[in-house]
Amino acid sequence: MNEEIFTQKLAALFTQRGDVLVGPGDDCAVLDLGLGDDLILAAADQAVSSIHYLPDCPPEKVARKVLCRNISDIAAMGGTPTHALVTLALNPMDEKWLSAFHESLEIHAASYGMSVIGGDISALPFSGQQCSLSIFGKVKREKLCLRSNAKPGDLLYATGFFGNSFTSEWHLDFIPRLRESEFLAGAFTNTMMDVSDGLLKDSCRMARASGLGIRFDVSKIRLRTGTPSVENALSDGEDYELIFAVNPSLADSLEASWPYQSEVPLSRIGIFVESAPGTALNFDGSALSLCRKGFDHFST
Amino acid sequence: MNEEIFTQKLAALFTQRGDVLVGPGDDCAVLDLGLGDDLILAAADQAVSSIHYLPDCPPEKVARKVLCRNISDIAAMGGTPTHALVTLALNPMDEKWLSAFHESLEIHAASYGMSVIGGDISALPFSGQQCSLSIFGKVKREKLCLRSNAKPGDLLYATGFFGNSFTSEWHLDFIPRLRESEFLAGAFTNTMMDVSDGLLKDSCRMARASGLGIRFDVSKIRLRTGTPSVENALSDGEDYELIFAVNPSLADSLEASWPYQSEVPLSRIGIFVESAPGTALNFDGSALSLCRKGFDHFST
Repeated sequence: MNEEIFTQKLAALFTQRGDVLVGPGDDCAVLDLGLGDDLILAAADQAVSSIHYLPDCPPEKVARKVLCRNISDIAAMGGTPTHALVTLALNPMDEKWLSAFHESLEIHAASYGMSVIGGDISALPFSGQQCSLSIFGKVKREKLCLRSNAKPGDLLYATGFFGNSFTSEWHLDFIPRLRESEFLAGAFTNTMMDVSDGLLKDSCRMARASGLGIRFDVSKIRLRTGTPSVENALSDGEDYELIFAVNPSLADSLEASWPYQSEVPLSRIGIFVESAPGTALNFDGSALSLCRKGFDHFST
Repeated sequence: MNEEIFTQKLAALFTQRGDVLVGPGDDCAVLDLGLGDDLILAAADQAVSSIHYLPDCPPEKVARKVLCRNISDIAAMGGTPTHALVTLALNPMDEKWLSAFHESLEIHAASYGMSVIGGDISALPFSGQQCSLSIFGKVKREKLCLRSNAKPGDLLYATGFFGNSFTSEWHLDFIPRLRESEFLAGAFTNTMMDVSDGLLKDSCRMARASGLGIRFDVSKIRLRTGTPSVENALSDGEDYELIFAVNPSLADSLEASWPYQSEVPLSRIGIFVESAPGTALNFDGSALSLCRKGFDHFST
């Protein structure tokens, strides 16, 4: 069984309270706690040494990465991050490492207006570190973006560049697309997610959640410097860019008003079409096939 | 530097938003999000194989433990648990283990009226598992219990029995004291915490947070079956019982009305006194000294 099918099976296992608008399966869960127009977002992600970063990665960068991965999930929903809880398991129990990690976490959290409100530190039986971070945020009801809202004919857009995230260290230094999400959510889209497991894999997740397929215009995908081919751009992962669906009637207005083109260019990389849910097609409608299809924790 | 001083140093590092009533340092953080009389509780805790449980521990028990440890933190604040996020890092990526873990998590969460709203699964570079769980809950403003509210002359009470948690497997099978917390919070106390790192260590944390010392009546401490001595009861840890401070004017009423005496007896184990913050004394006021003082991740 692959990760995709297994995590869908797990998500279906969990019964949800009446205050849960969206449970497991999107970038964040969405809670309606009775705050009027404000909804609460919640997500959790982790960074494990030798899996998500090299063992000698400075603790400052580990802290930044685990925080910004989660902020990227808040951005994907159209929201603003507010609070975080963090747990660390590590060996050796290195106070210098811990201090540098937490000081970096505070600096970056504060720069986003967030507070680290609690956590836990434990020993680990093996050399290395495992860090989990849970994030909370807020989103206005009308700005909420889900994976499942795409309609046939919607255009698939992406921010920024893809591929070569690991060697370029983009996976450590990326900037979560909060500013871009603030501009897009509610005004141009209510269908968005971030790209962490590969552009193709994550786009197909959005298509599947919306009950649609996608015809890709792969020639429009922008490659990060050093990315050898569009196949890498489609499958490398850890891009932390936004992908989103736009009604074609809004496309010209979006492209004309996008304020970040010089730094974070927009690309129109596909169109949602009626098809078996989650199907990836070439722009001419033929089947799109690639050797690699993004990062799968179950097979690597 | 010991864990106590180091975690205090870390907690002081984090600046807090205006909506954070209580930040790091208590059993939960407390958020005032504008829900009137309802406050939000949030905490995170972990379970690591070979640290918090033996490597062959059934996944069902691991899931129950990591959930109930967090529920115990909600009980300590006088609250009710509502939602959880869970991350797992494991090796091998055993689908049977994962399924059993998540099925158990759902069964136990649902039995407490909770929903598991999201999470993440990752590979781990070494054989074993690391699990983190973040919990949210609610508490009425007037029921909120903090460590720091004890007054000189308040009596220190404890629920249940202490010691021998590991061999007896109480550390896997304990019942978080939600029912007892519901009875106590607001009516008899607003000063409470749960005992995870040892009765003496955690009592002294409550005393320190309140700027007081404690004279212990160690003869009143109830020993779990198999606990060899009161020293073990004071230092073994993982008891997941509640300790709380009661104004002496309420003590008779509390003891007469306590509904759970046959199953979860109350014990009056000490009194808060003016002293250097966090000082442990014998009942006659002489210094209390013990060989072991509870679990410290920095020294074990």
